Amino acid sequence: MADWRVQRKARDARIERGRVHAEGKLVAASAVVDLLEAVLLPGDRVCLEGDNQKQADCLARGLSACDPVRVHDLHMVQSGIVLPEHLDIFEQGIARRLDYSYSGPQGARIARMLYGGQIALGAVHTYLELFARYFIDLTPNVALIAGVSADRDGNLYTGPNTEDTPTVVEATAFKNGVVIAQVNAIVDRVPRVDIPGDRVDFVVEADRPFYVEPLFTRDPAAVTETQILMAMMAIKGIYAEYGIRRLNHGIGFGTAAIELLLPTFAERLGLKGKIATHWALNPHPSLIPAIESGWVEQIHCFGSEVGMDRYIRERPDVFFTGSDGSLRSNRAFCQTAGLYACDLFIGSTLQIDLQGNSSTVTTNRVAGFGGAPNMGSDPHGRRHPSDPWMKAGEEAGGTGDPALRRGRKLVVQLVETFGDKLVPAFVERLDALELARKLDLELAPVMVYADDVTHIVTEEGIANLLLCRTLDEREQAIRGVAGYTDVGRGRDHAMVEALRARKIIRRPEDLGIDPLDADRSLLAARSIKDLVHWSGGLYEPPAKFRNW
Amino acid sequence: MADWRVQRKARDARIERGRVHAEGKLVAASAVVDLLEAVLLPGDRVCLEGDNQKQADCLARGLSACDPVRVHDLHMVQSGIVLPEHLDIFEQGIARRLDYSYSGPQGARIARMLYGGQIALGAVHTYLELFARYFIDLTPNVALIAGVSADRDGNLYTGPNTEDTPTVVEATAFKNGVVIAQVNAIVDRVPRVDIPGDRVDFVVEADRPFYVEPLFTRDPAAVTETQILMAMMAIKGIYAEYGIRRLNHGIGFGTAAIELLLPTFAERLGLKGKIATHWALNPHPSLIPAIESGWVEQIHCFGSEVGMDRYIRERPDVFFTGSDGSLRSNRAFCQTAGLYACDLFIGSTLQIDLQGNSSTVTTNRVAGFGGAPNMGSDPHGRRHPSDPWMKAGEEAGGTGDPALRRGRKLVVQLVETFGDKLVPAFVERLDALELARKLDLELAPVMVYADDVTHIVTEEGIANLLLCRTLDEREQAIRGVAGYTDVGRGRDHAMVEALRARKIIRRPEDLGIDPLDADRSLLAARSIKDLVHWSGGLYEPPAKFRNW
Repeated sequence: MADWRVQRKARDARIERGRVHAEGKLVAASAVVDLLEAVLLPGDRVCLEGDNQKQADCLARGLSACDPVRVHDLHMVQSGIVLPEHLDIFEQGIARRLDYSYSGPQGARIARMLYGGQIALGAVHTYLELFARYFIDLTPNVALIAGVSADRDGNLYTGPNTEDTPTVVEATAFKNGVVIAQVNAIVDRVPRVDIPGDRVDFVVEADRPFYVEPLFTRDPAAVTETQILMAMMAIKGIYAEYGIRRLNHGIGFGTAAIELLLPTFAERLGLKGKIATHWALNPHPSLIPAIESGWVEQIHCFGSEVGMDRYIRERPDVFFTGSDGSLRSNRAFCQTAGLYACDLFIGSTLQIDLQGNSSTVTTNRVAGFGGAPNMGSDPHGRRHPSDPWMKAGEEAGGTGDPALRRGRKLVVQLVETFGDKLVPAFVERLDALELARKLDLELAPVMVYADDVTHIVTEEGIANLLLCRTLDEREQAIRGVAGYTDVGRGRDHAMVEALRARKIIRRPEDLGIDPLDADRSLLAARSIKDLVHWSGGLYEPPAKFRNW
Repeated sequence: MADWRVQRKARDARIERGRVHAEGKLVAASAVVDLLEAVLLPGDRVCLEGDNQKQADCLARGLSACDPVRVHDLHMVQSGIVLPEHLDIFEQGIARRLDYSYSGPQGARIARMLYGGQIALGAVHTYLELFARYFIDLTPNVALIAGVSADRDGNLYTGPNTEDTPTVVEATAFKNGVVIAQVNAIVDRVPRVDIPGDRVDFVVEADRPFYVEPLFTRDPAAVTETQILMAMMAIKGIYAEYGIRRLNHGIGFGTAAIELLLPTFAERLGLKGKIATHWALNPHPSLIPAIESGWVEQIHCFGSEVGMDRYIRERPDVFFTGSDGSLRSNRAFCQTAGLYACDLFIGSTLQIDLQGNSSTVTTNRVAGFGGAPNMGSDPHGRRHPSDPWMKAGEEAGGTGDPALRRGRKLVVQLVETFGDKLVPAFVERLDALELARKLDLELAPVMVYADDVTHIVTEEGIANLLLCRTLDEREQAIRGVAGYTDVGRGRDHAMVEALRARKIIRRPEDLGIDPLDADRSLLAARSIKDLVHWSGGLYEPPAKFRNW
């Protein structure tokens, strides 16, 4: 007779072995390696919580200190590859396979290790996709997560950086997995219960507070006039034109410039209340002036941001907060909101090709795309109309019965024609394709595919790809805003002028914008200090941003 | 100075008014109307938990008994419109606006009320889309939810039908909303914590256990030979051909037939372990024989199913279960899994047009589509390859650089050419378009759009729309499997034969299937009683399915 409790019994045995190193559920930081060696089995699928912001770093150090003879060939399934330990374990033979989503700081090292064959790569997912697989074919055997505090029953308080934790824990705890949490402190009673204790098997009191990455702070002092010009075009030529109220902004100075122009440039255009009211967004400090000026109705957050805690606590009408007063973020729900409930995604990229495919992957860096592929895609399952969505759908046109027409998500690439070190952003062919060839990947690491992009904004103008009717028009529309790059100089001038007459390409002057007006005086805040002022002293920027 | 706590104070005031009718958090069933009248304000957005299965019916009765002078113009935002009370409140003026996802039993009444102007319709969403909007622009002010039990602190045990509850509660509780739960019993300690008590404001001990709808039970006795033939074709022509391991099945006898053929027909084809191993699925009783035969590795569930509780408890290696042993379902995560982590969605419909658009909406019934638009769509954000997905992408072909090629989700419509009462399933134009015109809807209620459907399976054969290169080929491929319907008889015979030569149309004989073999003896279970036997007596079908 079949045994239907093989996994369940294995789980019970893991916990029993772990209990040797615990008092109840509590484990001393000094016993982490013993605990992990007791619980983990070779070949396990492990989620070592590495989020965009919050890092289970004590557990990461513990894992990298395990004996590879005992713990080896792990299959890591985690959204962020952020800490050196996340890759050290592959060099040590502790881990072998990797499925992940995003790696800012470790992108170059991942590329080297992929070339060197030290990592067997599954795929580079968008967050929501990786979470989806947690419930189907990448369910973790062990989850190593991070929180602010826990009580003795294991009830967990994540603080404002809830992020991936509920999703990881749900997939693991309810499918015979073991959940180990590191916390900064054991307390009698947690300020709020982010994760119920019956889903948590072990709690490690970490030797120091978990690491948080301030990933979403852009110093207004570094916003350039080119970025201001592009932001003006985006606001007037896209946000106002379509009436975008529900949106997501990617990371970057371009979108920070838009945020900083809302209470100034956009307010003078009479757009307050008509655009940018409902957000799926990390708590960007650069949105503070718009919030303080009454532009923003509500924001749901993927994660938090260092220094924003007090400000968020004092703005509960805007942010999602818990009974304790602090932010409740949730990456899975915020990504879902960005996919299905927002009318616009705007973000940046490193390279765009002649059809509009884009990628931030180069031959030397495999950084991953985080949420961009998800939020920068047209959700075919969407069934609720909104004005911007219907207008975009109308522009996209298409043959067939007009009664069958549906809308389109607006997906905007905001990109300067020449990026860092004057590398052109427009290319004939993405470097990602060369990387895919070299690494023999089945699927090239494209961030946003051409058929999802609707607009490209550069300092030269806006290309509205929705209005293009042929691949050739599309290519010329892209060349027409590609400036002095080779791609831009390769344009057919007559055709570009014809596209401009059809408003497929719009120059600043076509939008009634004088590039000379693109001045830093338009920024609602011109420094981090200004943001602190706007916040009434509630925003507490991390030290590296305090330059006054 | 701006007040940033308007919502928060309003919430506190609601709770204070409600407390008058409570002891701590506990409220007697007899005080429900008083509680609701105290907490609710005119114009509130309210989620009255109506899921696919679980119904907060005590609270629904309470709401419909409220005084419309005090409680009126509510905006209902809930996934299921299932109980009569869900619509009574619109007739009474208690509610005015409606945003929802699915309504099986009330579809005809909704249509009448829409025509009569009693309901101001927002949109008919797919589940995940409605959940997404909970975090952006449809955040509930008050959530009325259902659980099995609660303790005095409000910690909630949902039992196996967790379904929408965590999502609804998260959106409401963390955005200044009030959460009221009905439970079957107040207990000292809940078997597991599905919802932490600090997110629950009031707990009502209901006068009777909440209603659960057995929505996913299909009696094998009612499976026809036509459905068996179609199931054989789907298994051999699609599941085997693409190697589908990760999948979702819609509701219906067609997919039940497939489930019942896995341990027989599919096993003889040597497909065990090669197809149908990982599922996003409600716990269909018709999958029991496949599970018992060792076909299924794991299943994540949207909700539970009446009668399946004991069986699930004894199969923890297959299902997601909690520390209490019972199923933990979660509609939001399962829909996400169906979208991003499954390679195939297969379901049924009432009408398909000449391009492949489909809908279950007719001019008399607005039933909604539940998860079908979500799971029956190609997720453009997907970035992980799999063999079925890549093969489908290759078949879809397309111009441009092959290095940029990506995969395609398989979306299969399983439909008999003539449906109930011999109404043709293939039509020149969907009734949904006429309904949209009459109700002046911005967006026609299409379930799955033509560009997402990859295969249509009828008793006449399989049409592979991926291989079609023109709209004309597509139309003839559809006509070519549409049998004796007008659409089928309108086919261009020469072209259909040419499509067959190119394997775009495949008849049973092309697949090596003899229709005479499509016999009920192929079903692993031929009755509900057989399913009970297969389960070793663990499956306990509800009374209406017990016909022995």
